Amino acid sequence: MDLLSTRDLSDEQLDYLLDAASHWLRFNKQLRKSDDRLAGMTVLTAFFENSTRTLMSFDIAARRLGAMVSNLPVDMSSLAKGESLHDTAVTLDAMRPDVLVLRHSQPGAPRQVADWMDCPVVNAGDGTGEHPTQGLLDVATIKQHFGRAEGLTVAICGDIRHSRVANSTRDLLERMGANVRLAGPAALMPEGHDGPDGIDDAVRGADVVMMLRVQRERLESDLGDAPGEYLSRYGLTADRLALAAPSAMVMHPGPMNRDVEIEGAIADGDRSLIRQQVEMGVAMRMAVLDLVTIERRSRAPAS
Amino acid sequence: MDLLSTRDLSDEQLDYLLDAASHWLRFNKQLRKSDDRLAGMTVLTAFFENSTRTLMSFDIAARRLGAMVSNLPVDMSSLAKGESLHDTAVTLDAMRPDVLVLRHSQPGAPRQVADWMDCPVVNAGDGTGEHPTQGLLDVATIKQHFGRAEGLTVAICGDIRHSRVANSTRDLLERMGANVRLAGPAALMPEGHDGPDGIDDAVRGADVVMMLRVQRERLESDLGDAPGEYLSRYGLTADRLALAAPSAMVMHPGPMNRDVEIEGAIADGDRSLIRQQVEMGVAMRMAVLDLVTIERRSRAPAS
Amino acid sequence: MDLLSTRDLSDEQLDYLLDAASHWLRFNKQLRKSDDRLAGMTVLTAFFENSTRTLMSFDIAARRLGAMVSNLPVDMSSLAKGESLHDTAVTLDAMRPDVLVLRHSQPGAPRQVADWMDCPVVNAGDGTGEHPTQGLLDVATIKQHFGRAEGLTVAICGDIRHSRVANSTRDLLERMGANVRLAGPAALMPEGHDGPDGIDDAVRGADVVMMLRVQRERLESDLGDAPGEYLSRYGLTADRLALAAPSAMVMHPGPMNRDVEIEGAIADGDRSLIRQQVEMGVAMRMAVLDLVTIERRSRAPAS
Repeated sequence: MDLLSTRDLSDEQLDYLLDAASHWLRFNKQLRKSDDRLAGMTVLTAFFENSTRTLMSFDIAARRLGAMVSNLPVDMSSLAKGESLHDTAVTLDAMRPDVLVLRHSQPGAPRQVADWMDCPVVNAGDGTGEHPTQGLLDVATIKQHFGRAEGLTVAICGDIRHSRVANSTRDLLERMGANVRLAGPAALMPEGHDGPDGIDDAVRGADVVMMLRVQRERLESDLGDAPGEYLSRYGLTADRLALAAPSAMVMHPGPMNRDVEIEGAIADGDRSLIRQQVEMGVAMRMAVLDLVTIERRSRAPAS
Repeated sequence: MDLLSTRDLSDEQLDYLLDAASHWLRFNKQLRKSDDRLAGMTVLTAFFENSTRTLMSFDIAARRLGAMVSNLPVDMSSLAKGESLHDTAVTLDAMRPDVLVLRHSQPGAPRQVADWMDCPVVNAGDGTGEHPTQGLLDVATIKQHFGRAEGLTVAICGDIRHSRVANSTRDLLERMGANVRLAGPAALMPEGHDGPDGIDDAVRGADVVMMLRVQRERLESDLGDAPGEYLSRYGLTADRLALAAPSAMVMHPGPMNRDVEIEGAIADGDRSLIRQQVEMGVAMRMAVLDLVTIERRSRAPAS
Repeated sequence: MDLLSTRDLSDEQLDYLLDAASHWLRFNKQLRKSDDRLAGMTVLTAFFENSTRTLMSFDIAARRLGAMVSNLPVDMSSLAKGESLHDTAVTLDAMRPDVLVLRHSQPGAPRQVADWMDCPVVNAGDGTGEHPTQGLLDVATIKQHFGRAEGLTVAICGDIRHSRVANSTRDLLERMGANVRLAGPAALMPEGHDGPDGIDDAVRGADVVMMLRVQRERLESDLGDAPGEYLSRYGLTADRLALAAPSAMVMHPGPMNRDVEIEGAIADGDRSLIRQQVEMGVAMRMAVLDLVTIERRSRAPAS
C-alpha cells in the first residue's frame, strides 16, 4: 500500500499507526534500538525539495527497522538534466526498492509517481498539498499527551494557505473528533475561507495551539510586516497564550522562526510539545514504514 | 583486480559477469535481497561528476552485497580546496576501503588513481573515456532479451564523439560478435570516422537501436538545431524505427531527452529495453563488485 | 561523556585512546573489519562546514563499529531557513541519536550543543577553536612512529593564528612531554606571540616538522605573496628540512597545498607521515566513538 494522503487511511489503519508509533516511541528510548523487520529491504528517499528534519527522520526510522537506505542526492538529480518525473520514477522503480519516500514541490506528484511504481510510495510532503506523516505525528503527539483527540479544540494559526500541514493535520484531527479552528493573516488564509481569522478568537479556550511557520519572504511580499510586527499581530505571545485553556499545549511543525510566529520562551517552556513532535516523528515514520510493507512482507517472510 | 576498461576483462571474466548479472537480476526480484559476501568490507563511492543513476545503482548494489558504503560528498570535496587527485587518492586509500567506485570528468583518471591505491578501483565513467559497467549492462540486457549478441546488428546513434557509452558498449558488442554501426550528426561523430553517418542507413535492418543522449548545450552550439529539428533529423521516430528489423528493440543509457533524441512513445512502448537496462544496471554492478573482490576475499574468508 | 576539547581528557582516557587507536589501526588492515559494539546505535554527523576527510573518517569509523550512521546534509540544513543552533540541537536530540559528531565554524558551538543534548557530542572542529580528534591522531601517529612523544621536539609551522590543529595538537604534545615550537609568517601568528617566528629556527634540530595548511585567500590578503614565494619564505623545502634532526619526520593535517606550504617531493617521500595520519584518523575515531559510548553501553548491554 501507499501512504499518499491521510484520506487513504482506514480507521483500522489509523488506529494501528497510533498504537505502533507509541510502541516505537518507547523502543527509541533504549540504547540499542534496531529491529530487523525490514532486513534485506531497500528504502529509497528522493527529496526534490529541501527538508532536513523530515529526511533525517525517515532515514533514521528506516535504519532502525533494519532496512538498507539509499538517499537520492537531490542536487545531482537527473531532473536537473531535464529528465521527466515519469522517467525518474521508472528508473528508480527498476532499481527494485521496497519503499520510496518522496518529497516534491508539486502537489499530486507522489500520487503520480505511485502509479508508475511497483513499490509502496510514502508522500513526505508535496508542495501545498499534503504531508500525511506530519499529520499523523501531530495527532499521535496530542493523543500521547491528552490521552485522546476527541473533544479537544485545536487552533491552527499562521500561513494556512501555503501549508500542507494544515491540510493533513486538520483532516486527521476532525476525523478523530477534535474541533479545529484555522486562523491567520487574511493574505495567508485559503481563498473562500469564511471563518474568523482573528488569532485571538481562535486561541481563546483552545486545548492545543499549533503555530505554523511563516516564510520570511512572505512577511515582506504578502504582509509588508517586520518580523516583530508579525509576532504581535499574528504570533503566539504569552498574552495570547493566556487566552487558551489553562492546560493548553503548544505545537509547531518546525523549523521555527523564533520571535516571529512564536515567542522563544513559549517554545522552550513546559507547555511546549515541540520536542515531543520530533520524537514522535521518528516513531511514526517507523510505524508507517512497517505498515506500508506489511502486505509485501506477508508474501515473503524473512528467511 | 580493477575494472577500468572493458578491455581489461578476459573472456572468462566477461562470461562470469554475464552469468552472475543474470543471477542477481533474479535475486533482486525478491522482497528480501541481501547477501553477505561483502560483509565487513567498505565500498567508497567518489563521484567528481554528477550522475545520479550510476551512483544510486552502485550504492544499492554494494548494500545488497552486505558492504558498508560511504559516499564522498562531491560538493564538499577537498578537490575544491585545490588538493590534487593524487593526494585525494592517497587519502582515500589510507582509510582502507575495499573498493573505490570512481566517476571523474578526466579520461584516464581512474587508471591513475588505481595505480596509487591498494584496493580495487571501478571506473564509473571517465569523461569521454570509458564506462565499462554501462557497456556490460548493455550487452547483458541484449543477451537477456535475444539470448545472444552474436550476429546481431546494433545501431548506436547520436553524440558518438562525446560518448563513453559508445566506446565501452561497442567494444563489448564487437567482442561478442555483434555488428555495430555508429551514426550521428557529422559534428558529433569521432574525427576520422569514415562510415555512413546517416541515421536511416544505420537503423535499416538493425536488431537493436541504441540512442545516445545529446547535451542540450550542444544542440545549439554544435548543431544550431532546435530540439524538434534534432528529433526529425537524427532522433528515433516511429517512421525511422520502422526501418529496423521487425523484432528490433530500442535502448538508451539514460537520462533521456524525450522527443529530442527519442520519441516519448517509443521509450514507453513494448519495444523499449530502457527499464530493463536500469534493472540490469544494479545486477551487473553487484556482479562487478563481487568479481573485483574475489581475489581479496579468497585471502581472507568471512569469519 | 563528550569529547569537546583535548583538555577534557584525563590521563587515563588519553592512554586508553592511544592504545585503542593502535588496536583499530591493526584491525583496519584486515579485509573484514567490522565490530558490533555500536550495533543498534545511531551516530549522527552534522557538518555545518565543509570537511570531506574528517567527515569520511568518522563515517567509516562509525560503520566499522556497527553503528547506523545518518549524515545531516549540510546544504539542506534548517539553519539555512533561519533555525537557531539551539533549535537544531533540540531537534536532533529528539531523534535519539547515540552520538552526535559536530563540525561548526563557531568556536564553542559544540560545547553549547552538548549542553542541550542528552547524547555524547564529539567536536569535529569548531572554527579556530579546537579539533580534538586531529590532535589525538597526530600524537598517536607520532607515538606509533617514535614509540613516544616525550622528549621530542615538534615544530608546528604556518598559519598558527587560524589553526585549531595547532591548539589541539600542541596541547596534547605538551602534556605528553614534547617540546613544541610554533612558527609562521608574523601576520599568521597568534596575537601576543613572543617566540621566534623564523621557520628555520623552529625546524632546526626538530624531530617532527608539522606543516599547516595556508588558505590561498590569505596568501594574497594577509601576505601579498605568490604561492611560490610562500614556499621559499615559510614552506618546507628540502633545504629547510635538512636543518631538522637526521631522523626527523614530516606531518601535515591535509588537505595539502603542494609546493605552497610543502614541497611535493617531501610529502611523497619516505620521511612523510602524512598517509599514516589519515590511516590513524579512522582508527582514532573508532577509539573515540568507543570511548564516548562506553558509559551508556555499560548501562545497556547488547542483547
